Amino acid sequence: MTGNMVALVKECPEPGAVLREVPIPGIADDEVLVKVDYASICGTDVHIYAWNTWAQNRIKTPHIMGHEFAGHIVETGRSVRGFSEGDFVSSETHIYCGHCYQCRIGHSEVCQNLQILGVDRAGAFAEYVAVPERVLWRNDDSVPAAWASIQEPMGNALDTVNSESVAGKTVLVTGAGPIGILAVGIAKAFGATQLFASDLSDYRLGLATQLGADVVLNPTRDDVVTKVLEGTQGVGVDVVLEMSGSEAAFHQGLQALTPAGRMSMLGLPDRPVTVNMTDDVIFKELRLYGVTGRKIFSTWQTVSRLLASRLVDPTPAITHNLKFEDWQQGMDAMVAGTSGKVVLQVSGR
Amino acid sequence: MTGNMVALVKECPEPGAVLREVPIPGIADDEVLVKVDYASICGTDVHIYAWNTWAQNRIKTPHIMGHEFAGHIVETGRSVRGFSEGDFVSSETHIYCGHCYQCRIGHSEVCQNLQILGVDRAGAFAEYVAVPERVLWRNDDSVPAAWASIQEPMGNALDTVNSESVAGKTVLVTGAGPIGILAVGIAKAFGATQLFASDLSDYRLGLATQLGADVVLNPTRDDVVTKVLEGTQGVGVDVVLEMSGSEAAFHQGLQALTPAGRMSMLGLPDRPVTVNMTDDVIFKELRLYGVTGRKIFSTWQTVSRLLASRLVDPTPAITHNLKFEDWQQGMDAMVAGTSGKVVLQVSGR
Amino acid sequence: MTGNMVALVKECPEPGAVLREVPIPGIADDEVLVKVDYASICGTDVHIYAWNTWAQNRIKTPHIMGHEFAGHIVETGRSVRGFSEGDFVSSETHIYCGHCYQCRIGHSEVCQNLQILGVDRAGAFAEYVAVPERVLWRNDDSVPAAWASIQEPMGNALDTVNSESVAGKTVLVTGAGPIGILAVGIAKAFGATQLFASDLSDYRLGLATQLGADVVLNPTRDDVVTKVLEGTQGVGVDVVLEMSGSEAAFHQGLQALTPAGRMSMLGLPDRPVTVNMTDDVIFKELRLYGVTGRKIFSTWQTVSRLLASRLVDPTPAITHNLKFEDWQQGMDAMVAGTSGKVVLQVSGR
Amino acid sequence: MTGNMVALVKECPEPGAVLREVPIPGIADDEVLVKVDYASICGTDVHIYAWNTWAQNRIKTPHIMGHEFAGHIVETGRSVRGFSEGDFVSSETHIYCGHCYQCRIGHSEVCQNLQILGVDRAGAFAEYVAVPERVLWRNDDSVPAAWASIQEPMGNALDTVNSESVAGKTVLVTGAGPIGILAVGIAKAFGATQLFASDLSDYRLGLATQLGADVVLNPTRDDVVTKVLEGTQGVGVDVVLEMSGSEAAFHQGLQALTPAGRMSMLGLPDRPVTVNMTDDVIFKELRLYGVTGRKIFSTWQTVSRLLASRLVDPTPAITHNLKFEDWQQGMDAMVAGTSGKVVLQVSGR
Repeated sequence: MTGNMVALVKECPEPGAVLREVPIPGIADDEVLVKVDYASICGTDVHIYAWNTWAQNRIKTPHIMGHEFAGHIVETGRSVRGFSEGDFVSSETHIYCGHCYQCRIGHSEVCQNLQILGVDRAGAFAEYVAVPERVLWRNDDSVPAAWASIQEPMGNALDTVNSESVAGKTVLVTGAGPIGILAVGIAKAFGATQLFASDLSDYRLGLATQLGADVVLNPTRDDVVTKVLEGTQGVGVDVVLEMSGSEAAFHQGLQALTPAGRMSMLGLPDRPVTVNMTDDVIFKELRLYGVTGRKIFSTWQTVSRLLASRLVDPTPAITHNLKFEDWQQGMDAMVAGTSGKVVLQVSGR
Repeated sequence: MTGNMVALVKECPEPGAVLREVPIPGIADDEVLVKVDYASICGTDVHIYAWNTWAQNRIKTPHIMGHEFAGHIVETGRSVRGFSEGDFVSSETHIYCGHCYQCRIGHSEVCQNLQILGVDRAGAFAEYVAVPERVLWRNDDSVPAAWASIQEPMGNALDTVNSESVAGKTVLVTGAGPIGILAVGIAKAFGATQLFASDLSDYRLGLATQLGADVVLNPTRDDVVTKVLEGTQGVGVDVVLEMSGSEAAFHQGLQALTPAGRMSMLGLPDRPVTVNMTDDVIFKELRLYGVTGRKIFSTWQTVSRLLASRLVDPTPAITHNLKFEDWQQGMDAMVAGTSGKVVLQVSGR
Repeated sequence: MTGNMVALVKECPEPGAVLREVPIPGIADDEVLVKVDYASICGTDVHIYAWNTWAQNRIKTPHIMGHEFAGHIVETGRSVRGFSEGDFVSSETHIYCGHCYQCRIGHSEVCQNLQILGVDRAGAFAEYVAVPERVLWRNDDSVPAAWASIQEPMGNALDTVNSESVAGKTVLVTGAGPIGILAVGIAKAFGATQLFASDLSDYRLGLATQLGADVVLNPTRDDVVTKVLEGTQGVGVDVVLEMSGSEAAFHQGLQALTPAGRMSMLGLPDRPVTVNMTDDVIFKELRLYGVTGRKIFSTWQTVSRLLASRLVDPTPAITHNLKFEDWQQGMDAMVAGTSGKVVLQVSGR
Repeated sequence: MTGNMVALVKECPEPGAVLREVPIPGIADDEVLVKVDYASICGTDVHIYAWNTWAQNRIKTPHIMGHEFAGHIVETGRSVRGFSEGDFVSSETHIYCGHCYQCRIGHSEVCQNLQILGVDRAGAFAEYVAVPERVLWRNDDSVPAAWASIQEPMGNALDTVNSESVAGKTVLVTGAGPIGILAVGIAKAFGATQLFASDLSDYRLGLATQLGADVVLNPTRDDVVTKVLEGTQGVGVDVVLEMSGSEAAFHQGLQALTPAGRMSMLGLPDRPVTVNMTDDVIFKELRLYGVTGRKIFSTWQTVSRLLASRLVDPTPAITHNLKFEDWQQGMDAMVAGTSGKVVLQVSGR
């Protein structure tokens, strides 16, 4: 397919981005071209937009951001076998090599030669995006495109929740940002009997409540550990889902965990954290999981079903549903922390 | 049973201990009295002997140390049902309550009301020791008493190895002390295909080699991480068993681990450690396990079989087999770090 | 405590039972006496009542039936430490020895020396019942006694559901009897995205719907396998919970399972079943679990939380809530299969 | 590459095969051409050779058999990225689609659109074989080609052993055919503390002993269940690996299992088996696993390491190492059951 399209482009190595016309990308033999219906803004996109240190080191400008999306295939490469024009699809962001040790043992999510969509190659904040077949996901047709566009971050939430079963467990979610609140919804859908959520923002805690949190705690007012212990007859929670990247939250989580409990960590601390391994981890016999956020594609399978079955209703988590041209408004809300997921309607359908 | 016995007694709140006569302990209805054949010196006993800060806060003098032992029952309380005089037994050290949350969910090893033998009550560096029936373990009669006396620390090693299967995995054991070398032997017996061991002491590395280590590394000479990566075609190891409590070793372990690998930690750092959670744990999708060292009694069951089947031969790990009266020689070797396990023949049989 | 009490007694080796006065049981040192608030009728009680072959071989008359109950402790033996008069309790039915291989490896639910309450010793269809401390369960005070009395069978349902996680899975429950419908409720609470239930009785299927089944199938009208495949885009279900003991249902389950799926079997076929292992199990890579129905006490812990949190509301499953003296009406309903759980109010409180 | 090659061809729909010249196969864009160093005879090849009912229904003649092999790449298709000429490779036999439900959830080994090498397309009993890149396995260069050619069946053995860990477990292997004896070797390498093997053939039991079986039992002389119970203090084994397909062996396995044990089934019964589910599976709380024999490629990874590390030495299992032209001798031994693995040296290197 040839011609131009509108895309959100980071043009220069500095903060900001601009909506402008660029050529529609070509596709390789093993790729498809997708017309984007909806795209969703990720924290990674915010980093690129704001041009933080990580972005400065990683991104080559000009660059098209965005990797969370849903759309319809309009063109397929000659070696594509499993997908056809018109298919309603999204894409796994992690384009794995298939040959490294991690790929061979079933952990392609930590492939040692990863290429990331919207980071290492042109992304989905555009009318069209080119994607290799091997990372394409066929969406359930009953799922609205806006919902389908957030399946990737919802997968991050799912894998954090589901490192081990939460069925019948008590849970503390530290951090009620866009992924944290999705984790709240999923943990409740999977049988958490008591769910605490903590965040510094009452706005976010309000979203957590809408997604099903039983108790919300704001560390500016509440002693999180004390409240959790009080609410669990002194036992502590079985599970902590650390979604904030805050060292304080990490420590609250360790203290709130009952011995033989587990913590799954998705939030990324921006500096090293200090841990009393002896008292807080070893003597407590804790299990700590670093979570990258997907198994390819079992995570997608489960997320798809959660949405198709409406077992998790992400409506309260999608706080902003905007036209593509209103992207700045969404980006501002993300930067300010006054949003859940922000989705952009890229193409009218 | 009444009368006196010889015991190793910490008499005053200061370093040291003395072998002297004390009364044979009485037993409660649910306890048995065991005549000790062999006892083994644990690092905990060294702490009590040396009177470190932990010991000063925890131990009430006068106190009889020791909790690793094997012996024969000579008397049973009136409500004891499952054991009889003459039975060859050892004892789980962690006397659990059976009623707390952890006990109810099958984790009595982290019981919230633990009483520890030889710490919170009179121990086994004595001719006789009283033990509640619920923590008694019936030894395999084919296992020599000296071996049977180290089943408890061997269980620590086992649980560290076995947090997940090591079958077909590559393994780094950091720390080749008495429990570290037992972990080496068990990991090899359980199918580790390549086993690296690191320690600052060449003497200890020699023991690790005898127990089956394929490659030994001394950080005073070797760059542990580089050597492990070289030995694994740049992949890193699947498993790290942290047995040293050293922060340097912990960090070497994190670096040596392949993404999606796991580290089990038994070694107790004596101060907080600093961790780059983002790069070293989360992006690497690691699993970190705090290990307390036993499941009661599945760990004992497995250790017993490993010894009865001779699948693990602990002979090289038992570097000192001494008469009870020569305890000082064993304690000195433990303090100096020039020993594997030190066992004491308490009663001649 | 001395005196008489009313109990439901199987007096002679023949069908039937009678409500009459008998002496209040004495307790051993390690037992408590419980005043029964509510008891619930199990299929086992029906077998004893109806005097089937199993009952003829196992039960010694005169005998007091019943093992599902909730009540308050009125007396404690001298060695009881963890419970006191006035505690609100139920009891695990399987009185394990604590010494056999299974008890030692954490599987006391299949203890090789089991004594079963209400089968091998006097049961709970009585104003008072004696129970050993080690099988006592402390009830959550917020749970109504009628609900608390069905925790044991609800545990059977839980363990069948929870052999592996059902979160995000599609499930077929074959058999919508009292335990089958509880399994329906639990599977939905734990995140089954699509739940089919099958039974020959439309009455029971109605209960299954009330507990949350998405699709109900009656093999007298529906081709169960075809309907399941149609409802899952030809994939089949991930999980089958076999609660009926019917060979036909077992085979429908095998056919309805997707490759790499699992079946958990709680229903007891009354004769051997024939299995095409090659095509239906091995080539499909299925996992088949025999379920006895509890882990002691982790299963109880989870059931208690499900009720306390109201995550599972058993109200529709308790179809008959009767006075003790109306027991015959409940027994008749159980025999006829026109009931869910039948609970008996034994003592007014 | 063009020209002719020698291959073992099933020419007509009748028993037998013939070694003759045929054209070297062409390759598609995503395939490679491998010069075969060694190939190994599988039971499936025997079925095709003997032309049993399964073969009659599945195989289209003329057909080149064989799927267990090792060789070197001599040509690569234009879209092949991860392999080059000269690479030492073997191939997973199950050519999966990558798009079905099973492929998406990480179970491509039970892909619903499988094409099997040497069954559904030309196989490896030939000087050259064409293989799609996605099923290629890079061999460890230190592993002899004869050994590398049996990695696929050794994977079958591995997955049967490793359905769950055998570390510290007691094991019964029923059936000491070529894969059964490999299972014996692997189970011992992975820490089975006591290993029983049963077979009707003393020749095969001799091989089992060489691979590490502790006790061998011949049901024509030994009561297998009694002997296993006697050898385990009446407990029974924790694990049964059913490798024979015999109903008698299956039942012996069920009886020999301790409650809460597991059986993994790889042997294919040629007719339905009858199971007393109630007494032998449900009340015993057994786990039964149907095993298809590989995870792609984690199984290959482990097998490769077992051979490279010499942790399992397959030498005694390879009873026949023949020139390609002596294939008939190997086939006869396979038919007669007087062999372990039979390997054929196809190309001299």
